[in-house]
Amino acid sequence: MRIYDLIIIGGGPAGLTAGIYSMRARLDTLLIEKMVIGGQIITTEKIENYPGFPDGVSGVSLIQKMEEQAKIFGLNIESEEIKQLSKENNIFKLTGNQNTFFSKTIIIASGNYPVKLGIQGEEKFRGRGISYCATCDALFYKNKKVIVVGGGDAACEEGLYLTKFADKVYIVHRRDKLRAAKVLQERVFANSKIELLFDCVLERIEGTDFVEKAVIKNIKTKEEKAGNFCRRRCSKEKPASGIDRSRRRSNRSLYGRKIY
Amino acid sequence: MRIYDLIIIGGGPAGLTAGIYSMRARLDTLLIEKMVIGGQIITTEKIENYPGFPDGVSGVSLIQKMEEQAKIFGLNIESEEIKQLSKENNIFKLTGNQNTFFSKTIIIASGNYPVKLGIQGEEKFRGRGISYCATCDALFYKNKKVIVVGGGDAACEEGLYLTKFADKVYIVHRRDKLRAAKVLQERVFANSKIELLFDCVLERIEGTDFVEKAVIKNIKTKEEKAGNFCRRRCSKEKPASGIDRSRRRSNRSLYGRKIY
Repeated sequence: MRIYDLIIIGGGPAGLTAGIYSMRARLDTLLIEKMVIGGQIITTEKIENYPGFPDGVSGVSLIQKMEEQAKIFGLNIESEEIKQLSKENNIFKLTGNQNTFFSKTIIIASGNYPVKLGIQGEEKFRGRGISYCATCDALFYKNKKVIVVGGGDAACEEGLYLTKFADKVYIVHRRDKLRAAKVLQERVFANSKIELLFDCVLERIEGTDFVEKAVIKNIKTKEEKAGNFCRRRCSKEKPASGIDRSRRRSNRSLYGRKIY
Repeated sequence: MRIYDLIIIGGGPAGLTAGIYSMRARLDTLLIEKMVIGGQIITTEKIENYPGFPDGVSGVSLIQKMEEQAKIFGLNIESEEIKQLSKENNIFKLTGNQNTFFSKTIIIASGNYPVKLGIQGEEKFRGRGISYCATCDALFYKNKKVIVVGGGDAACEEGLYLTKFADKVYIVHRRDKLRAAKVLQERVFANSKIELLFDCVLERIEGTDFVEKAVIKNIKTKEEKAGNFCRRRCSKEKPASGIDRSRRRSNRSLYGRKIY
């Protein structure tokens, strides 16, 4: 039974960075990734705000560099989904779909998934006019019309942020009032670039290679409206692993979701 | 009177990164650096653990990329030393040697200075056989005997680096074991040019115009040994700005001193 010094769960930028540091510290380390190395970052076409890349870098390219770097220091990577964690005699037991692993310490760097709306066109245009993070991508929507979906703090914050870039921001919310903090609501109402569409849902997204049209439906009148847009946003995220994360912080940190 | 949204004090990796993010967030930002852009990082010949550079990157090269990136987003950089901070009517006033600046917010990213040992001869021979940076000065110590003071990552890294130039490198450490990363310790132990002097301190440095003699004391046996050396190094640091930093954390982080 091999007991590692450290097992890292998740092969995104956070996990690979942990791997680089742990291998340089000569810890016996294993990184476990259930899908492909990279995580959400590989869906990002251009990252402009990772320091050290003046011309920007694609998510795929950046993650390849990180993986190469980690492997230079000898990091081993296994493909497996961890379903359960337990601790026996001070040793962590990680139960996967096929194998069981043991380690003295664990770093969970399994990232987040954005919660999808599940509407037509959403998968197709992800990264092509649809994004899930204003801080990351707002600059790409300069002088354009943008739809933000939601009525909570995140929707209002990101909607407000987008007004620095976009010509017009529509906040589409399925209820008849916002549920964001009052201070945010006040700012939203005071911003002439924002138009609120209450009792509305985003019905589908259309286009050829990129988003060209969005269809919004009023759920009370059943009326549909179409317009030419190039972006929409869903602010919610859920953990990317199925294991217990009750003690984890959301990794909206330098190496987490918000690198872009 | 121009009031900035944000003034960043310090043009190292932390300050430039803050500049990239603030400019992308459309904040009216000014970065102020008192010396050259980069700070201590420019003294680092090879950075192996900054994610995204599998072959390593020199400090100068990395900082040039970051500066270029920040300037692409329009960051303005002023050369000035800030001597005093005050706050009037919720606006920060920054008093420099020549100019005064005003800002709604401030990020202090002013880095660190090497901490002196405070021993006899240290001030007198700084730059005359005493230096604080191997990458900068190692070439001056070709075919000589060198003392490195400390037992952490920096002491080991710089000791190892010096073996490329010096005939012999003594690492003088006041404790009975190193606290550097294991990978560095292994390299140090394997290097025949390095001799470790545990439980020892550098007592004083002597000479006329240049360092001629160093006295090392064993703190357990109280025994003193003198030898002819021409260099010593202290790995500790203190804040690089004279302004109030009581609420700052030491920036021994990714973007601080410990990038190596």
